[in-house]
Amino acid sequence: MRTLKIGLLGCGVVGSGFLHILRNNQALVRERARAELEVTKILVRDPGRPRPMVDPRLLTGAGEDVVRNGVDLVVELIGGVDQARALVRESIRSEKHVVTANKRLLALAGDDLLDLAAVHRVHFGFEASVCGAIPIVRTIRDSLAGDRIQSIEAIVNGTSNFVICRMEEGLGFDEAVSRAQALGFAEADPTLDVDGVDAAEKLTILSRLAFPGAPLRWVSREGVRHLGPDDFARARESGLILRHVAEARLDGGEIVLSSAVRLLDPEHPLARVRNEWNGVVLRAEAAGELTLYGAGAGSLPSASAVVADVVEIARRI
Amino acid sequence: MRTLKIGLLGCGVVGSGFLHILRNNQALVRERARAELEVTKILVRDPGRPRPMVDPRLLTGAGEDVVRNGVDLVVELIGGVDQARALVRESIRSEKHVVTANKRLLALAGDDLLDLAAVHRVHFGFEASVCGAIPIVRTIRDSLAGDRIQSIEAIVNGTSNFVICRMEEGLGFDEAVSRAQALGFAEADPTLDVDGVDAAEKLTILSRLAFPGAPLRWVSREGVRHLGPDDFARARESGLILRHVAEARLDGGEIVLSSAVRLLDPEHPLARVRNEWNGVVLRAEAAGELTLYGAGAGSLPSASAVVADVVEIARRI
Repeated sequence: MRTLKIGLLGCGVVGSGFLHILRNNQALVRERARAELEVTKILVRDPGRPRPMVDPRLLTGAGEDVVRNGVDLVVELIGGVDQARALVRESIRSEKHVVTANKRLLALAGDDLLDLAAVHRVHFGFEASVCGAIPIVRTIRDSLAGDRIQSIEAIVNGTSNFVICRMEEGLGFDEAVSRAQALGFAEADPTLDVDGVDAAEKLTILSRLAFPGAPLRWVSREGVRHLGPDDFARARESGLILRHVAEARLDGGEIVLSSAVRLLDPEHPLARVRNEWNGVVLRAEAAGELTLYGAGAGSLPSASAVVADVVEIARRI
Repeated sequence: MRTLKIGLLGCGVVGSGFLHILRNNQALVRERARAELEVTKILVRDPGRPRPMVDPRLLTGAGEDVVRNGVDLVVELIGGVDQARALVRESIRSEKHVVTANKRLLALAGDDLLDLAAVHRVHFGFEASVCGAIPIVRTIRDSLAGDRIQSIEAIVNGTSNFVICRMEEGLGFDEAVSRAQALGFAEADPTLDVDGVDAAEKLTILSRLAFPGAPLRWVSREGVRHLGPDDFARARESGLILRHVAEARLDGGEIVLSSAVRLLDPEHPLARVRNEWNGVVLRAEAAGELTLYGAGAGSLPSASAVVADVVEIARRI
């Protein structure tokens, strides 16, 4: 059986989940990928620090070691933008396929990277970059490939949704954020999440995919920090549910985007998204309404999507 | 630009939806398929009957005309088993790719046809055969390719679900079925739907895909015909929701299947599936719980899934 050599950039939350799944599901992955998947080099910040279950000879502190190491495919899980972009560009230019879970990279440089991948005829998988294990990229790109998408409405930021759900129960904003941090659903600095930056970036990625080439016009871009008990009291009085919703809607030839707190009817499919979960409602001309719910983040859910992208690429090459 | 020649078997509900989408979304489909898609022959029962928007020169009453007509891909939408199986087998043997929406064919001969397709190295798409536009085949096959699926719980028969929802509101079984027939959600003979045969067949298809090679053991296989007002009264009293649920669960090395009426907690993701809609809840080891809702049948939703399969094959060849 052929072997697909993988260079792994980053061995943090998602990277260690990725290694765990490859090891745990070795036979299954081999069969579905029709190839042996072998991680031959791993970029980490401190190659001297021992890591359980990882052969220390695979570790390196130099990204170039991974990208130039005769690998077939590079999995980018270091996060951040500058180094990730440089290493992904170098990987693509060296004709290596790339899989990434890096949402910021996709939002800021996705078009460039996809163009570069097309020029070099390599595959570029990014399912895990938006909504973790929810197969939203594949649904838009493959399952609705012959259809016209009309709108996307989504809860794409698990931290904000968790915070809203706790405030709904009576906690204050700061308390709700602390709770999210204690449970690992929020970063030490939750700004990008609770100020709506993360949701706006994810919506940008999904909109480019769903409405290729169409001009995007933002009408609102807010987070959840401004919410207070009065907002929840008013929602309750009117029998509605507060949720932070990212929305893209085809309007004429243009895509109108907003990412803001909305009052939803309790029957709205997104009104039922609880805690750190994500949900996406797509409306397409022929398919009608499609709703997807699932874990939008986390080590194993995101790593599951990364492995799926790797397996799909392995099957195709 | 290259042209992909398509032979279409059947021009009924889904077939005419397929032609409608190809015509309506011509530029979009061409771009995404990276090919011109041209339907060059169409099998119909009565080629003499004029059909709006269809060039009569394309029509034929002989399936062999379609399969042997120098086409690259055959789309099978005639339904039924015997003729469909013979034509699909002949298509595959003549090295033509196949896309089908035929659930019965898949349930009864899917393994054989997939093996035959592998031998002849042709693509075989069947997303539309289960749950219409809901991308459940792609999610199991591609999005969870590196993961271990543990269970599938699904509402896969829109007719039964519609009937249950009407009975919940107080209609009798016969009245509810008539209502479904009047709205086009039930056949003149609704037996296969309301007796659970259709749901069991769909569950078989999904289980083979999710648990390849594992032995399937049925523990119950019933429909909704036995339901009466007392069942709904008891459900209401206990605060539960009646739904017909098809379920497959990994238990030891074996897959335990049931397709039966269940009492669901109102918070269960399937308790919210209304009317003719379908819903599927997958649980996978790494991805966790994924839920998909959408239109499980109908001309355009099913045709959207057929076109997506055709586009995916066009991209790959």
